Amino acid sequence: MSKAAFTPVSDLSRNKVIKHIQAIVSKSEPDMAHIVRGIGDDCAVIRVDGQTYLRLSTSETYVEGVDFDLTYAPLQHVGYKLVSAALSDIYAMNGQPESMLVNIALPNKISTEMINLLFEGIGKAAKVYSCPMVGGDITASSSGLVVSISVNGVVHEDAVTYRSGAAVNDALCVTGDLGGAFAGLKILLREKRYWLDNGAETNFQPDLSDYEYVVRRQLVPESRNDIITAFAELNIVPTAMIDISKNLLQDTMQLINASGVGVKLYSGAIPIALETRAVADEFEEDVDQYALQGGEDYELLFTMPEKDVNILVEHFKDVVVIGKILPKSKGMQMQTGSGDTMHFDTSQME
Amino acid sequence: MSKAAFTPVSDLSRNKVIKHIQAIVSKSEPDMAHIVRGIGDDCAVIRVDGQTYLRLSTSETYVEGVDFDLTYAPLQHVGYKLVSAALSDIYAMNGQPESMLVNIALPNKISTEMINLLFEGIGKAAKVYSCPMVGGDITASSSGLVVSISVNGVVHEDAVTYRSGAAVNDALCVTGDLGGAFAGLKILLREKRYWLDNGAETNFQPDLSDYEYVVRRQLVPESRNDIITAFAELNIVPTAMIDISKNLLQDTMQLINASGVGVKLYSGAIPIALETRAVADEFEEDVDQYALQGGEDYELLFTMPEKDVNILVEHFKDVVVIGKILPKSKGMQMQTGSGDTMHFDTSQME
Repeated sequence: MSKAAFTPVSDLSRNKVIKHIQAIVSKSEPDMAHIVRGIGDDCAVIRVDGQTYLRLSTSETYVEGVDFDLTYAPLQHVGYKLVSAALSDIYAMNGQPESMLVNIALPNKISTEMINLLFEGIGKAAKVYSCPMVGGDITASSSGLVVSISVNGVVHEDAVTYRSGAAVNDALCVTGDLGGAFAGLKILLREKRYWLDNGAETNFQPDLSDYEYVVRRQLVPESRNDIITAFAELNIVPTAMIDISKNLLQDTMQLINASGVGVKLYSGAIPIALETRAVADEFEEDVDQYALQGGEDYELLFTMPEKDVNILVEHFKDVVVIGKILPKSKGMQMQTGSGDTMHFDTSQME
Repeated sequence: MSKAAFTPVSDLSRNKVIKHIQAIVSKSEPDMAHIVRGIGDDCAVIRVDGQTYLRLSTSETYVEGVDFDLTYAPLQHVGYKLVSAALSDIYAMNGQPESMLVNIALPNKISTEMINLLFEGIGKAAKVYSCPMVGGDITASSSGLVVSISVNGVVHEDAVTYRSGAAVNDALCVTGDLGGAFAGLKILLREKRYWLDNGAETNFQPDLSDYEYVVRRQLVPESRNDIITAFAELNIVPTAMIDISKNLLQDTMQLINASGVGVKLYSGAIPIALETRAVADEFEEDVDQYALQGGEDYELLFTMPEKDVNILVEHFKDVVVIGKILPKSKGMQMQTGSGDTMHFDTSQME
């Protein structure tokens, strides 16, 4: 291997790696006639001959120490969160989950009691989201715990929502509030550090009751099936949608790039919980950065014409307009509280 | 954690862990009306309302150092093999794969050139088996490479074959030959050891040409879509089927336990390639043990009435009868070359 070319993956961003893989795989692609949407959206979309319901497929892998940290996250919570995160991709297509497979790679340090806890969390989420676990696989792991979750779901062909349908003048909307999961992470990491520094000598029990909301947002996020039900009841279909798993800026960029449009975000409209503001104040940090770049909120970001927004907000309260779709030439910009307009260099964010 | 109960997973076998998980998850199981078969077969089987085709779902995770070894397996081969292995579960239900998702957890040591090789292998298999890769996920790994493959497939409700349908007097049949992948592994591990002992000082290039067949069986196994096509053309449906991913003994036991029957294996009938025999001779080992306990051959093991076997073998040559289904009370036994009957304690094999 010594003379072979070696370009470290870390030199490329995740999105570039995905594009890279897409290019390799497309060279040898077999018959794709029934594949409505392949690599590049929240789910793959597959048409079954003669059916009006499309099949959705998504899969995510979570690695201990990278995607979750057992030093502060209880295993039940890890199980619940990973299911929430995986299902969020199904909801982001305006679909409903149907079943999931869970694979685990187990290191020796994991006991059967710990597996119990993990699967209690997975089972609880399965019940909450009506998505039974129907199988999976177990292998050994030489280092940390690895959990892969694959979800199958369905969506009517008239309701399927891609990242790519946003139209100029559409409103950009978001559910819930943002930055809370990141605020929770800040608190948990602070407690972890305190514990590492002092835990061995003292009978340290962290008191997180003041931070319950943000810690819950980090440890056991809910994915937003409630608005998917509302869309169906109100007979509204968003023009484009993505779940906020990375962060508002990156996921907005994904949506506008897929749609070939620009966007203006209204900084002052971005929903932030009081509890999140309190944490940012405590750390003397800018809470807007938590909301814009924090990640892991698993809220839904979508676009629709203003008339549909008006119908929606009358019946579904937990949603706000945070921006407006512009022509592509306008790029990605944000109107700040002082009325100034910031421009983002989206080429730097890919 | 110090006072919490800790039962190491290694104390339990993989099948016991699966049963354990099944018990936890079933406590919180949501509506399972459309789940025809959940945990415990090669795939989950899901009914879509009003459809005669059932959906198949399977997912496997492969961990570097546990399920594959990059010191002797080229990355293209790893990619190809993992797809073969994942698709084998779809064929084991008598189904056809439709699409797959591939997740990778990447350690820093993996370059983009190495990712190219991995996905070239995956792409080649996608083409050979007409199963496009339609998505996936990338995350970082703090240790080795982890690859998870999820496959969706279909099978007609009249053709779906479980592990559980074997009937007394059915013939037990197997495709191809057994023990070859294990023989290949023996050769590769010997070369690896030689390389570790001498490689640094010498310009060591292993000459594996004498072992091409068995090395290929280990590195790039094919899964048996050919016999699935033959079943369809001949309008034959096996009564039970499983793929041999562990080994003949363990997978036979899975099949008879799921079916509630016993079995007699004919030792002399078990198909073994000459190349596999040659390797066992070289190592002065018993080739029957390679075939019975070797693993990773990805052949199909199935049962059917003798009249169907007669039709099948007239048109499909690469299959042999290796046993007969008996009542459950007879357990698992094997008739040896000398005419003796061995009895296996299947409770020890779970």
